[in-house]
Amino acid sequence: MVAHDGTVMARLGRPTPPHDHGPEEVLAAILATIDELAGAAPRSGVRAVGLVVTGIVDERRGIAVHSQNVGWRDVPVRSLVEQATSLPVGFGHDVRAGTLAEWRLGAGRGLQDLVFVPIGTGVSAGIIVQGRLITGGGYAGEIGHVDVGHGEPCSCGGHGCVEALASAAAIARRYAAVSGRPVAGAREVAQRMVAGDPVARRIWDDAIEALALALAWTSVVLAPQAILLGGGLARSGSLLLEPLGQAMGRHLGVVRRPRLLPAALRDDAGFLGAALLAWDVLGQAGTPQVGP
Amino acid sequence: MVAHDGTVMARLGRPTPPHDHGPEEVLAAILATIDELAGAAPRSGVRAVGLVVTGIVDERRGIAVHSQNVGWRDVPVRSLVEQATSLPVGFGHDVRAGTLAEWRLGAGRGLQDLVFVPIGTGVSAGIIVQGRLITGGGYAGEIGHVDVGHGEPCSCGGHGCVEALASAAAIARRYAAVSGRPVAGAREVAQRMVAGDPVARRIWDDAIEALALALAWTSVVLAPQAILLGGGLARSGSLLLEPLGQAMGRHLGVVRRPRLLPAALRDDAGFLGAALLAWDVLGQAGTPQVGP
Repeated sequence: MVAHDGTVMARLGRPTPPHDHGPEEVLAAILATIDELAGAAPRSGVRAVGLVVTGIVDERRGIAVHSQNVGWRDVPVRSLVEQATSLPVGFGHDVRAGTLAEWRLGAGRGLQDLVFVPIGTGVSAGIIVQGRLITGGGYAGEIGHVDVGHGEPCSCGGHGCVEALASAAAIARRYAAVSGRPVAGAREVAQRMVAGDPVARRIWDDAIEALALALAWTSVVLAPQAILLGGGLARSGSLLLEPLGQAMGRHLGVVRRPRLLPAALRDDAGFLGAALLAWDVLGQAGTPQVGP
Repeated sequence: MVAHDGTVMARLGRPTPPHDHGPEEVLAAILATIDELAGAAPRSGVRAVGLVVTGIVDERRGIAVHSQNVGWRDVPVRSLVEQATSLPVGFGHDVRAGTLAEWRLGAGRGLQDLVFVPIGTGVSAGIIVQGRLITGGGYAGEIGHVDVGHGEPCSCGGHGCVEALASAAAIARRYAAVSGRPVAGAREVAQRMVAGDPVARRIWDDAIEALALALAWTSVVLAPQAILLGGGLARSGSLLLEPLGQAMGRHLGVVRRPRLLPAALRDDAGFLGAALLAWDVLGQAGTPQVGP
């Protein structure tokens, strides 16, 4: 629960429920969570719901086009939740909502052109251009899914994708596969690299190089003022940012080089972004406002 | 000279004058050309000037930041021409103005998200996102200058740039260098390829592959509805578009694939775009309007 100024008033996390029997199960769990949170609301009550999902999202029509991790295809989420709760619903995409939050409340405040790249289970980008969030009909910012030629399979079904080398999940998985030693996550791979582990060094370098290529291309297309790195991988701080900036520089010619900055809101970016979408719905009579 | 509806009323071309003695020489030639065209104007007269230049252009401030081919650095072109002519001046960048023309008058009519890529002496992109031209402070769309690893020098001073393989100029230059036979232009290389020349085939394939990579990355960042190919290279028609579409497809995973279309206005895109900027200045009391 988030107040108008971004203050977090209550917080409730729930794992994604199993959804073997259809998309309704996840929706029912969302509605139960809303009820539970609303029960904890102060006297002024809950005025709107903010809801963001992963995958391909059509914000304009309020539809989850393809959200693999909850089994949704063409689900009209916004209207379903509006009907069930009798509340206005701000609906969006997790990364784009997080971008909105980093822009208005986080490391991107005051910028007009920025890119937010959370790196966790996947790699994608949220984009602000000239003070507006861009969507590409739900498809903009999928920078993790270009075949850069390394040949390894990707969860998208393709091969050679940036994400298959550079996501935090891929770094941990590849390290375990090559070294034969399980690892808690990408951060542990970074720690082993610092301790001199040559396998960790190679896996980390592969990730940096793939990411640098993705961010270099993003930079020439958009010429953003800054790229904000977020998600689990950004916790590695300068172990990520310094070599990434150097590798990007090797790819970029006569262009505006963006500042590389750590995102500010950590795991709260998507959550706060959903709240901003909810407040925007109230401010704009039902039309999500994506500018500041 | 262009009427409000895009009708061309008069046309006057002049080669860029020598500018060894400073930026003033080119400016003087521009002013002389404006005078000459104005002398041919109908009774209603000339109401505004449209002026576009190459390189790094700051449309908002009216400044040619770096226009190598006319020797300009930080020249306040808009105010200089306004003072000299006592006319309002619509000022912009050649590729972005051409993008505006293709969008409003050419192959991009009715689209909200498109990319225009003229391929001639260079390779760059003009970008319309959600119905607005984007500028990136003058640096957006420089997709010709990412190092893709081929190692050959580029006119930008870097190495391995897309432009150094894929511009029409590069195709002709590389073919002549490898075969030892001079060639009139990229189109002749295409013709030799069709006639079975293996060197022409290799040079053409190199260009297609570099362009495909640039357009694939542009597609994942922006998810445009269409990419319009223009400039001299687009005259090769299906010899360009068909292999380019196939090569892009090999790089792209789960993203919105843009239609690849030939641009419609040929060499007139920049010229008509300049006229649109001039008309926009009249419509908006001095502020260039970049939306439709």
